[in-house]
Amino acid sequence: MSLARRLFAESLGSLLLTGVVIGSGILAVRLADGNEAVALLANTGATAAILYVLITALGPISGAHFNPAVTLVMALRRSIEPSEAVFYVIAQICGCILGALLAHAMFELPLLQTGSHERSGLAQGLSEGVATFALVLAILLVSRARVSAVPAAVALTIAAGYWWTASTSFANPAITIARAMSDTFAGIRPEDTPLFIAAQLAGALLGSMAAWLVLRQPHSGRELS
Amino acid sequence: MSLARRLFAESLGSLLLTGVVIGSGILAVRLADGNEAVALLANTGATAAILYVLITALGPISGAHFNPAVTLVMALRRSIEPSEAVFYVIAQICGCILGALLAHAMFELPLLQTGSHERSGLAQGLSEGVATFALVLAILLVSRARVSAVPAAVALTIAAGYWWTASTSFANPAITIARAMSDTFAGIRPEDTPLFIAAQLAGALLGSMAAWLVLRQPHSGRELS
Amino acid sequence: MSLARRLFAESLGSLLLTGVVIGSGILAVRLADGNEAVALLANTGATAAILYVLITALGPISGAHFNPAVTLVMALRRSIEPSEAVFYVIAQICGCILGALLAHAMFELPLLQTGSHERSGLAQGLSEGVATFALVLAILLVSRARVSAVPAAVALTIAAGYWWTASTSFANPAITIARAMSDTFAGIRPEDTPLFIAAQLAGALLGSMAAWLVLRQPHSGRELS
Amino acid sequence: MSLARRLFAESLGSLLLTGVVIGSGILAVRLADGNEAVALLANTGATAAILYVLITALGPISGAHFNPAVTLVMALRRSIEPSEAVFYVIAQICGCILGALLAHAMFELPLLQTGSHERSGLAQGLSEGVATFALVLAILLVSRARVSAVPAAVALTIAAGYWWTASTSFANPAITIARAMSDTFAGIRPEDTPLFIAAQLAGALLGSMAAWLVLRQPHSGRELS
Repeated sequence: MSLARRLFAESLGSLLLTGVVIGSGILAVRLADGNEAVALLANTGATAAILYVLITALGPISGAHFNPAVTLVMALRRSIEPSEAVFYVIAQICGCILGALLAHAMFELPLLQTGSHERSGLAQGLSEGVATFALVLAILLVSRARVSAVPAAVALTIAAGYWWTASTSFANPAITIARAMSDTFAGIRPEDTPLFIAAQLAGALLGSMAAWLVLRQPHSGRELS
Repeated sequence: MSLARRLFAESLGSLLLTGVVIGSGILAVRLADGNEAVALLANTGATAAILYVLITALGPISGAHFNPAVTLVMALRRSIEPSEAVFYVIAQICGCILGALLAHAMFELPLLQTGSHERSGLAQGLSEGVATFALVLAILLVSRARVSAVPAAVALTIAAGYWWTASTSFANPAITIARAMSDTFAGIRPEDTPLFIAAQLAGALLGSMAAWLVLRQPHSGRELS
Repeated sequence: MSLARRLFAESLGSLLLTGVVIGSGILAVRLADGNEAVALLANTGATAAILYVLITALGPISGAHFNPAVTLVMALRRSIEPSEAVFYVIAQICGCILGALLAHAMFELPLLQTGSHERSGLAQGLSEGVATFALVLAILLVSRARVSAVPAAVALTIAAGYWWTASTSFANPAITIARAMSDTFAGIRPEDTPLFIAAQLAGALLGSMAAWLVLRQPHSGRELS
Repeated sequence: MSLARRLFAESLGSLLLTGVVIGSGILAVRLADGNEAVALLANTGATAAILYVLITALGPISGAHFNPAVTLVMALRRSIEPSEAVFYVIAQICGCILGALLAHAMFELPLLQTGSHERSGLAQGLSEGVATFALVLAILLVSRARVSAVPAAVALTIAAGYWWTASTSFANPAITIARAMSDTFAGIRPEDTPLFIAAQLAGALLGSMAAWLVLRQPHSGRELS
């Protein structure tokens, strides 16, 4: 498949994913009457739903990364050429930013915004590392165990991540950049993004190592399905 | 399969779908104690649940469109004869209206009502276009990637759409007409329907074009499952 | 498989199903701080979850009816001997009653209770008829379209039914009897049960007829999966 | 597969599972504005989500028990060597405790805590017995009926258990120990753990016996899928 098509798929998927993350956050807060747990439940459900759809739809085209941390791991494993990986990352960032603009347009907000939601400190960094560790681990292990379960597994790993990490599990450098351009429920202050992105990349590498430890020999015949 | 049987399936499915959309909205608002996010969560869950069931049950019979925008796209792609498509649309509209009446009857409301929920303006139109774009894109791509995942993918695309678009994602001209006949949570003012329907049809055509761009060459061997 | 084993499966499944329906209703109301929509969301989720599990687990043993209305339809279609159907119904009723007692025991309530939740009137009867119609239709059509999807389809049909019907979709005579023995969120007054059961049986027969209309010729090659 | 790899998988899965159970409980309570049902809904969703992921990912490696009660049943059935079972249990307990510490670290709480949530009395013991009975029954029956459904079945059995048992379904001695080390929503007083663990083991044995009663002869050809 041509690189152009795959880049189109990555940016389209990143756009829709970010649109859902930010848009559902906006509507959820407007409707939730101050109960942030209700708002986050709606935000979680919408995010997980679209992840399942996008990975099922675009997985056969581009691999459906939508995430530079995932692309990095795939490049290190030579599942994708390093030269292509650079274009993937650019397409992901552009798509995520367009998705933020689209969400703002639908809710009649200024298109260009700057995030003001403070998310700093060691515990936030730890959370992002753990979230991305779990995401990469799930992708690599489930791809090996039952590839048709990858869309559900990624969706559900992120759904759990929204709740069990203190940072609500951004787990994605491209979406982190786009969320720094949104002064809404899902936003983040620009000055907090370097910590998030560094923690995400570190978590991704650790997740890849943990998967290697688990899988380093061929499976015995104990396959689940 | 005879056309009559397929039209029966389309109208039965449209009836049950609309009954769920409107009925669950009524009960959700009655019970939600003023928290609209809780009401919309229930409305979302019920809608997605019945979509999965109806598409699984009736997909092999009629294709399970329940939606003139989907039928339009399928007619343009020659998946259905244009002459049959006209009857599909009539069956869908009749089914959706009957579904609204059924929901009203179960909740002891006047059968015939006129929607009073204002949903107007450019941002609402944009939202409906985006919602139907995403729906058609998901249907066409997932049909190609893994046809058994279509029921879940449609259900989850609509579930996400309820939250990330500012219009709560009607994404269906037939159900829009029926919702104009309901003065409840899911209703819409009749004068707002032309904008919704035009935006839905435009979004459907754009979604079809985006799917063509993504798929225009045969897949390489990267199938997900 | 011996009839005894199948009856054990039917009663065990009915017990666990009813335990979940009543038990989750009790806890949900205790925790929901007066928001009945939140309570019903929890009740819905728990019910759908256990239905998926029980039908997957016991379907290959007994058919996993847990419901006299379903057993009636299966007997009319000769999927089960009429003489066995009688025992099925007895096993289901006994299981459901034991499930109610178990739920009461876990929450330290009197084991034997009488329901006081009024659920009467034409609209309630219509709701139960519609709920059981949809349930039987889903079972018969999905069994034909994709048998492995039956557990999810039944779970999701009931989940939608909890919200779109005005009666919250009992859709099961055995569980109706057991719920008349519970003075909790899921309860019903004994004097309201004849209407519910009559409506359920009528809905089941109509659902069976609708399925026959949809399916009466062999499928063309349009299978979903 | 080497025992070391399997023990690593068991402890890693136990760590992530416990991290999610405790971490999502902490965040849910912080955000839920006093509505405990909303908090438990979030806790339930996160727990079920990660269970699906972990069992799919690690099932082919170690069997994905993460639970001494399950390991006990598997050892009695000779699915695992008794000598290995002892190491499994140690790995599970260590993993669960590390998961509690990780959740505390992410939310900036003292790493070492003592649970103060009282959970005592006969009804609580009955609840834990019932919860573990249902879990073991589901695992054994679904493994036989459709092995690819095991991850979803376990996740949904626990999701239902959170609501229909009065103890919110710990159903796992290793996680019970870890939760005694957490003074949060998911915590338990240390002095209540012996009752919980005894009830869990008794429930597991009864569940294993019930499964044997249901399955003791080979299936007829009625497989669901």
